[in-house]
Amino acid sequence: MRVIIDGRVQDILAVVMKGQQVQMIDQRLLPFTFRISKFRTWQATVQAIKDLVTRGAGSVGVAGAFAVAQAAQQIDASTIEEWNAQLHSAAQTIAQARPTAVTLSSAVNYCLAAAESGTALAEKQHQVRVAAKAILERDMKASQAISEAGQSLLKSQYRILTHCNTGALAIQDHGTALGVIRQAHATGKEPLVYVSETRPWLQGSRLTTWELQQEGIPHHLIVDSACGYLHQQGLVDAVIVGADRIAANGDVANKIGTYEKAVLAHEHGIPFYVAAPTDAFDLACPNGHDIAIEERSAHEVRSFTGTLPNGRTGTVQIAPDTTSVLNPVFDVTPAKYVSAFITERGVLSQISLTSIKQLVHSGNGL
Amino acid sequence: MRVIIDGRVQDILAVVMKGQQVQMIDQRLLPFTFRISKFRTWQATVQAIKDLVTRGAGSVGVAGAFAVAQAAQQIDASTIEEWNAQLHSAAQTIAQARPTAVTLSSAVNYCLAAAESGTALAEKQHQVRVAAKAILERDMKASQAISEAGQSLLKSQYRILTHCNTGALAIQDHGTALGVIRQAHATGKEPLVYVSETRPWLQGSRLTTWELQQEGIPHHLIVDSACGYLHQQGLVDAVIVGADRIAANGDVANKIGTYEKAVLAHEHGIPFYVAAPTDAFDLACPNGHDIAIEERSAHEVRSFTGTLPNGRTGTVQIAPDTTSVLNPVFDVTPAKYVSAFITERGVLSQISLTSIKQLVHSGNGL
Repeated sequence: MRVIIDGRVQDILAVVMKGQQVQMIDQRLLPFTFRISKFRTWQATVQAIKDLVTRGAGSVGVAGAFAVAQAAQQIDASTIEEWNAQLHSAAQTIAQARPTAVTLSSAVNYCLAAAESGTALAEKQHQVRVAAKAILERDMKASQAISEAGQSLLKSQYRILTHCNTGALAIQDHGTALGVIRQAHATGKEPLVYVSETRPWLQGSRLTTWELQQEGIPHHLIVDSACGYLHQQGLVDAVIVGADRIAANGDVANKIGTYEKAVLAHEHGIPFYVAAPTDAFDLACPNGHDIAIEERSAHEVRSFTGTLPNGRTGTVQIAPDTTSVLNPVFDVTPAKYVSAFITERGVLSQISLTSIKQLVHSGNGL
Repeated sequence: MRVIIDGRVQDILAVVMKGQQVQMIDQRLLPFTFRISKFRTWQATVQAIKDLVTRGAGSVGVAGAFAVAQAAQQIDASTIEEWNAQLHSAAQTIAQARPTAVTLSSAVNYCLAAAESGTALAEKQHQVRVAAKAILERDMKASQAISEAGQSLLKSQYRILTHCNTGALAIQDHGTALGVIRQAHATGKEPLVYVSETRPWLQGSRLTTWELQQEGIPHHLIVDSACGYLHQQGLVDAVIVGADRIAANGDVANKIGTYEKAVLAHEHGIPFYVAAPTDAFDLACPNGHDIAIEERSAHEVRSFTGTLPNGRTGTVQIAPDTTSVLNPVFDVTPAKYVSAFITERGVLSQISLTSIKQLVHSGNGL
């Protein structure tokens, strides 16, 4: 990701592992403070995932894989069996840090499988680390390919509505929905982006606008509730979002509010595209009813964190602690509202159990 | 409105006029600080309306009427003609403080018409004041009648989704949509309320939850984007909102996001009710395309105002000042999505040009 820091252009990834340290662009502090936060233990990495230091299906998967690699190194065991048992226990904790995105559990499982190879501890540790790095590299290739695959759907000067953050902060190194938009910009299509702010965590206002600013892509920020108004005014040519988990039938779990955007696009005859790596398809999950929806703290709805006039990070409360809150942070969009999936293996417009199964099986694993 | 201040129950109105002073419950400071702010000049009252010290179609209309009464007294003119010209000029300024709600301009016009009666200045001033007070009294009666009329639509233990604030802060002394809910609670129907927070100004989280807490009505606060999720989970039996202006064909201008909620209710076969006084119908406006939609400052979307940990009011910024923002604060819901209007003259379920005209003409003016 191209980032301008103190006026200098730098190329950087949202999540990397250096030695035993997992490093993340601290997404809690953007857009006002750019900081790389560092986590030395696998437990610290898990807590960082829970605290949303990094977020987005791709980044969470990579961070989870690195946490398994850290655990493989840091577990103190006297036998391989004991090490193996402790690694599985750690892996379970890591996979549960965020329940909705399939990428986290599949990344963790992929690393665990790597621990089966080899006989010596050092060899197993090395294999886990290689597996974790492979997940990062796969994401980088997939997001580049998704960005290119989506171009067949976008005309010049399209006005595109997106939700949440699906850029290079969410999946290395381009993004999914935002990767497609970024590529459209890079190839001179001059897209205009409407960014819904994405309460409660404001990924839209804090992260997506920041990424678009780094790239110089024209955009307007709106409140989540204004999407219907945009459609009524004829201001939207396409809606593109990402996905945290896609069921075998094509139902899409994604950031809360995605479903509403799909219904509105449908009502106005505007295409609704979901950009995601095939890794986000979970064939073991028959439909959206089976996807666990994460509920997060009421605090996220009762208050806002941002930057105070003195430049420091601060939180303002808007409803008392006694206010009852429902805070589901994902919802499920039924497949019938999806015009097409944009994946690293191309665009899937005919959505069915069969076509999805074919798509997923057309790859060679990781 | 029943308000608990320092543990004592008080009966209070959102906007009143005492002598030459307009007094408003300062809605910018709720829910953490209850303060009555006072405005001595008509210009100060206009600024208060613009600054959202009071808001809501009813309260804005009453405050505008009081501003005309202040102007009638405060204008310094040597002849009746000059006074009249200046009053009309002031009235125009007052009516434009908020463009979308019809209540403001109709209240101002009603007070201006009262200035035609009598010959002596003192008599004219008195008549304007009487007219302004009549608007407050009419609202009080209308909101009580709306609250009762809506009961035929609500069953026991209904789970009701509402948007923005339509309570006693918005129209004296019960509210419209929230008046109906309040009445359902008072008559033992045990409603449960889902309150959408209503970005950007957070009338839901700051004001509606506050009113519901005063009355002890069970409720859950949600982000605006979670309404579709609630419908999917089968948690909503009815949606009730208010209206700022209703066109002759039944199209409804109301807080941004109302349209989205109407489409979602329609998609899920859930009734969508609009509670408003007949005063909100604007027969001069053929349909929603003719309603001016107010756009407010980008600052409202780029930042949040609330209460800091030290108890003082503070603002945090979430997007840089350079971020382009679109901030329409109302939208228009086409009549086809409205299941019924709840007015002080009863429930209108058969919505048409004719039935609306009949309803509006069935009254005796103010």
